[in-house]
Amino acid sequence: MAIKTGVVGAAGFAGIEAVRLLLGHPDFQLVAATSDELAGRPLASCYPGFAGATDLAFSAHADAPLGDCEVVFLAVPHTAALAMAPDLVQSGAAVIDLSADFRLKDPAVYEAWYGVPHTQRELLAEAAFGLPELFPEGLQQQAARFAQGRGALVACAGCYPTATSLAAAPLVRAGLLGAGPVVADAVSGVTGAGKKANARTHFCSADENLAAYGVASHRHTPEIEQILGLRDRLVFTPHLGPLKRGILSTVTMPLAQPATQQQLDALYAGFYAGAPFVTYLGGDAQPQTSSVAGTNRAHVSAVADGRTGTVIATCAIDNLCKGAAGQAVQCANIVCGLPETAGLDGVGLPV
Amino acid sequence: MAIKTGVVGAAGFAGIEAVRLLLGHPDFQLVAATSDELAGRPLASCYPGFAGATDLAFSAHADAPLGDCEVVFLAVPHTAALAMAPDLVQSGAAVIDLSADFRLKDPAVYEAWYGVPHTQRELLAEAAFGLPELFPEGLQQQAARFAQGRGALVACAGCYPTATSLAAAPLVRAGLLGAGPVVADAVSGVTGAGKKANARTHFCSADENLAAYGVASHRHTPEIEQILGLRDRLVFTPHLGPLKRGILSTVTMPLAQPATQQQLDALYAGFYAGAPFVTYLGGDAQPQTSSVAGTNRAHVSAVADGRTGTVIATCAIDNLCKGAAGQAVQCANIVCGLPETAGLDGVGLPV
Amino acid sequence: MAIKTGVVGAAGFAGIEAVRLLLGHPDFQLVAATSDELAGRPLASCYPGFAGATDLAFSAHADAPLGDCEVVFLAVPHTAALAMAPDLVQSGAAVIDLSADFRLKDPAVYEAWYGVPHTQRELLAEAAFGLPELFPEGLQQQAARFAQGRGALVACAGCYPTATSLAAAPLVRAGLLGAGPVVADAVSGVTGAGKKANARTHFCSADENLAAYGVASHRHTPEIEQILGLRDRLVFTPHLGPLKRGILSTVTMPLAQPATQQQLDALYAGFYAGAPFVTYLGGDAQPQTSSVAGTNRAHVSAVADGRTGTVIATCAIDNLCKGAAGQAVQCANIVCGLPETAGLDGVGLPV
Amino acid sequence: MAIKTGVVGAAGFAGIEAVRLLLGHPDFQLVAATSDELAGRPLASCYPGFAGATDLAFSAHADAPLGDCEVVFLAVPHTAALAMAPDLVQSGAAVIDLSADFRLKDPAVYEAWYGVPHTQRELLAEAAFGLPELFPEGLQQQAARFAQGRGALVACAGCYPTATSLAAAPLVRAGLLGAGPVVADAVSGVTGAGKKANARTHFCSADENLAAYGVASHRHTPEIEQILGLRDRLVFTPHLGPLKRGILSTVTMPLAQPATQQQLDALYAGFYAGAPFVTYLGGDAQPQTSSVAGTNRAHVSAVADGRTGTVIATCAIDNLCKGAAGQAVQCANIVCGLPETAGLDGVGLPV
Repeated sequence: MAIKTGVVGAAGFAGIEAVRLLLGHPDFQLVAATSDELAGRPLASCYPGFAGATDLAFSAHADAPLGDCEVVFLAVPHTAALAMAPDLVQSGAAVIDLSADFRLKDPAVYEAWYGVPHTQRELLAEAAFGLPELFPEGLQQQAARFAQGRGALVACAGCYPTATSLAAAPLVRAGLLGAGPVVADAVSGVTGAGKKANARTHFCSADENLAAYGVASHRHTPEIEQILGLRDRLVFTPHLGPLKRGILSTVTMPLAQPATQQQLDALYAGFYAGAPFVTYLGGDAQPQTSSVAGTNRAHVSAVADGRTGTVIATCAIDNLCKGAAGQAVQCANIVCGLPETAGLDGVGLPV
Repeated sequence: MAIKTGVVGAAGFAGIEAVRLLLGHPDFQLVAATSDELAGRPLASCYPGFAGATDLAFSAHADAPLGDCEVVFLAVPHTAALAMAPDLVQSGAAVIDLSADFRLKDPAVYEAWYGVPHTQRELLAEAAFGLPELFPEGLQQQAARFAQGRGALVACAGCYPTATSLAAAPLVRAGLLGAGPVVADAVSGVTGAGKKANARTHFCSADENLAAYGVASHRHTPEIEQILGLRDRLVFTPHLGPLKRGILSTVTMPLAQPATQQQLDALYAGFYAGAPFVTYLGGDAQPQTSSVAGTNRAHVSAVADGRTGTVIATCAIDNLCKGAAGQAVQCANIVCGLPETAGLDGVGLPV
Repeated sequence: MAIKTGVVGAAGFAGIEAVRLLLGHPDFQLVAATSDELAGRPLASCYPGFAGATDLAFSAHADAPLGDCEVVFLAVPHTAALAMAPDLVQSGAAVIDLSADFRLKDPAVYEAWYGVPHTQRELLAEAAFGLPELFPEGLQQQAARFAQGRGALVACAGCYPTATSLAAAPLVRAGLLGAGPVVADAVSGVTGAGKKANARTHFCSADENLAAYGVASHRHTPEIEQILGLRDRLVFTPHLGPLKRGILSTVTMPLAQPATQQQLDALYAGFYAGAPFVTYLGGDAQPQTSSVAGTNRAHVSAVADGRTGTVIATCAIDNLCKGAAGQAVQCANIVCGLPETAGLDGVGLPV
Repeated sequence: MAIKTGVVGAAGFAGIEAVRLLLGHPDFQLVAATSDELAGRPLASCYPGFAGATDLAFSAHADAPLGDCEVVFLAVPHTAALAMAPDLVQSGAAVIDLSADFRLKDPAVYEAWYGVPHTQRELLAEAAFGLPELFPEGLQQQAARFAQGRGALVACAGCYPTATSLAAAPLVRAGLLGAGPVVADAVSGVTGAGKKANARTHFCSADENLAAYGVASHRHTPEIEQILGLRDRLVFTPHLGPLKRGILSTVTMPLAQPATQQQLDALYAGFYAGAPFVTYLGGDAQPQTSSVAGTNRAHVSAVADGRTGTVIATCAIDNLCKGAAGQAVQCANIVCGLPETAGLDGVGLPV
């Protein structure tokens, strides 16, 4: 198959990662990669890792053949997707949105955390949330729409929400979460801070350094609460760490009732038994970001702490891949009726 | 003044950091640095950063002139300090112990977490806990003993306990801690894993990687609970991160009653007003490990999260300095009646 | 096709990288991965990046089904391949040797630099040198032998020799090299120092550090001289740098006669026009190790310095891939009559 | 003593390193640190490593009390020092210039490499070159001038020239340099690329990466040639590596006549016998950038390669310290008649 595909905002970190995955995809054919800043420049001259893999050049957004595309990935800042998605869906395209614009089901919550009005409430109601391991039904509905020529819209989960929710969901959905705060402390690599060069992303600031940021105020907080069905209970503290790719989220959850490690292992292993990209490690193994870098995979562990009546679950993903572009391709695969793993079966580097 | 000083276990990371600080100290005169493995080799040939600063060579432990020393730093594995401390104290020396042997006041807790008997219970009862910002009285008592020629023993706080407790103590001591778990997620640089070369400390494992370890089982847990007066309430999860020096501990605490950010700022700033090494950052600033690397300083912040009724406090230290050797020198200064900051006034690298 | 394939020494860095490539290869089927140390342990439990990709476990060398293998990769220390290769070739297998045992055509040179006798001089005379861009004929001869059931032996070029020779060969082979020393200063990532954990590969030694080693004595020196046809003219200085993967070799060569940058560009671009894995960057672009990490690609540049009458050529490769396992797979592809790029078309990470 | 001192351009990497050193200096009293961008902000709020060490705030250049300063460090872009130095010298100040404006003795060379006219040729003729180990006399002359109230001007050597020249000078000055190119390949940490955040200094570009730049065209080339008395013979290739601080320069020099390693060791050790900041390592030890980071020290080695008739000398420095601000303070100490090591005796971190 050769499904014409475009990436809008292809020069940013999530966009260019989508490009990478699409260049190796058996069914999606990349025909447009937009960047107003780099328009006209070959992808491989800006990203030399693509030398030999493509002759495509960036197009200006206005000039890109997006109308020819059956699938369009939006790797744009929030509010930009609000403006672009309606026409694309209308034209019958599958729109895979990596921005935050259609993630929060309650537009009031969006408006409170993002500080801008939500102008596409009808489309918001129709959109599926793109985290296939936890919300498969919505994606199947989009697949049906798309097959009928009615277009599709998927709001891919954010990077921190993906890692945090994959760690917490088995316990939460089993009804084992007790009362009190859920604490998620997560560390992201610097790609999570985006391509913009500034004082914070300067090598000499980020290297050999670690700090929290967005304490008690990060916009991924309501998204995680929505996924897990929590209300004003999640304390989410993101940190920036000295690595390029990777998120490790460590989630501490009070238990509603005592649970043994064996029960926990059975619960988590069973929950992810059919998930091609998620591995519950079990035993003493702890997820490491380096094991999943460059892949769409998530590694999860959960440890029962009988002493305090809590569970400590951790999840490692590549923030650009399972946390952004890989998940987007996974969602696109599902919407287009392709194998869920098409183009995403790359093996992690052993070292 | 020239106070003869020795470092036992001087070739390990904490020991050699003590050596570094002593080489620049105005009053302590380093006369013995023991390492059975490196005995006979000049310090500067093993640690080239000392070239030009000292001609001292490592001594075998049995040959070292420790009997001449008024102050002895023990940078040894646990149980080794149990064996060495009694005679040294008996001889009138100030023993500054960086190991875990005399930290836990209840020997049963020591035995439960370390899996070995505590053979020096009397000495344990006499030892002071070495975290001057939180326990100044005990150190003053040791100073009095030492001045009377009766020897002294200080059990310096561990690295994670130092960072975690400095973040939490102002709130806890003000009686503002509510019910439920206290969650401390901390990331340490690889010096924290020690000098031993193994699969985990190999550059190719640690670089671009982040993982939790010792989940629900790290031996610093009871030490932090002791410092903060908690009982089976602390969930402490350490992580290893890709940096050499530094610990950032992020502590999430339920509030007993609502507190504004202004109240919190006043509480923390007041608590550390007289502490020469601790800075409460305030405002939006968050502690960064790179700011304190190579120094004895601690940077602290605290943020009130009204939404969840919690406070998120963070603290950054250099695990080898304020978390080990620097704190040890600070304690030794106090015990010897020197200015608390003697030899510890180095300024952090700006970049 | 499903060509049964084994990797001997699969737990080392080069061996496990070969495993990674073979797991994604369309024609080679990995049936044996030997490691006496890890025998019995699933690959994915030791290298979690393989989770979900293979259920294979390491075998002890003595137990491995190498007799069933048509292709065997030897990722073993030097002298071990001397012992293993003869029987395997005899049995008709294609032996792809990543060690140094069959690289140096003059056994006296091998014995001088490696300090051990060369016990397989006949086989040495028959072996092909595995650097396809520079020595395609030998590999074609091995392909013919293998097709006739007579077995094959390829001695893959070392990591530094690959990078250094790809930078220098176009100029040298055009007869443009003038008199005097050729200077190659190269920096390798720490994977080049091997999997063994020691003081040098400890994160706290290698991180934020850079140093030369093996000055005037590195064993890759005679190999580079052999490739380029030099005699006692190469000054090769390797360095260890704080990155995991990658070699950058910077080669300064006296020119026999003046050459313009345009002539140089034409020479290099033409030389590599048919090479699927080598890109001559041209213009102001300089090879970066990060662009080729995880891929079998080489990026090359050459700059004419009219002022000094020299050319400065640089080449970046991934030392584990194009410098070891990737090149080995490339050679195996050729020997087995597969497309040269089979299983090696992965795209470099954009960031 | 309390010598009033100012730093112009104090917010850049070299400027703020000068500030760090001056804060710990026994005789220089920092009274002005200028930055038009950060004017009014406390140094410690921008560089938290200074918390507790100073209450000084940045001043706008126009408002700074430079007229009160006896010593002024200029950490400004080239051409800015041309504009500032004359009045300051005229007023009797000791001007320690970290820019390139007064380094090249031949203004035509300056104009050729920097592309701007040299407007202060008289002052250029009077300035001393600031590399005390190689050019002590000029600094003594400035000291005499300054003592007489006539002001002083020192043009501190650049970072690459310092490392490269310290490696090469003993051999060159002994008349042992043979004919043909001298090749210096040097790697700098990212602080060498300056504080400006751009695509090249972004963590995600610089981390895990290594590349040459400025090939055959870097402006430090003529400066090194001037120091060593070479003419169109130096091939200098700088590289950017993934570390914050440090330069390692590897210099390959043809020998005029054979020399043994013993002769070389004696030559180099003797050359630097009286230099408080330079250590000739000898034996198998190679300079490591991490050993000198944060210090004003230089580590040097030299290896004779009889096979090729060359010497490979390497030197490691901290580019911001011995390569910039530390050397500037060293020069200022000499000019002001202080001990050469005042304020520069910090010991390198052992790990």
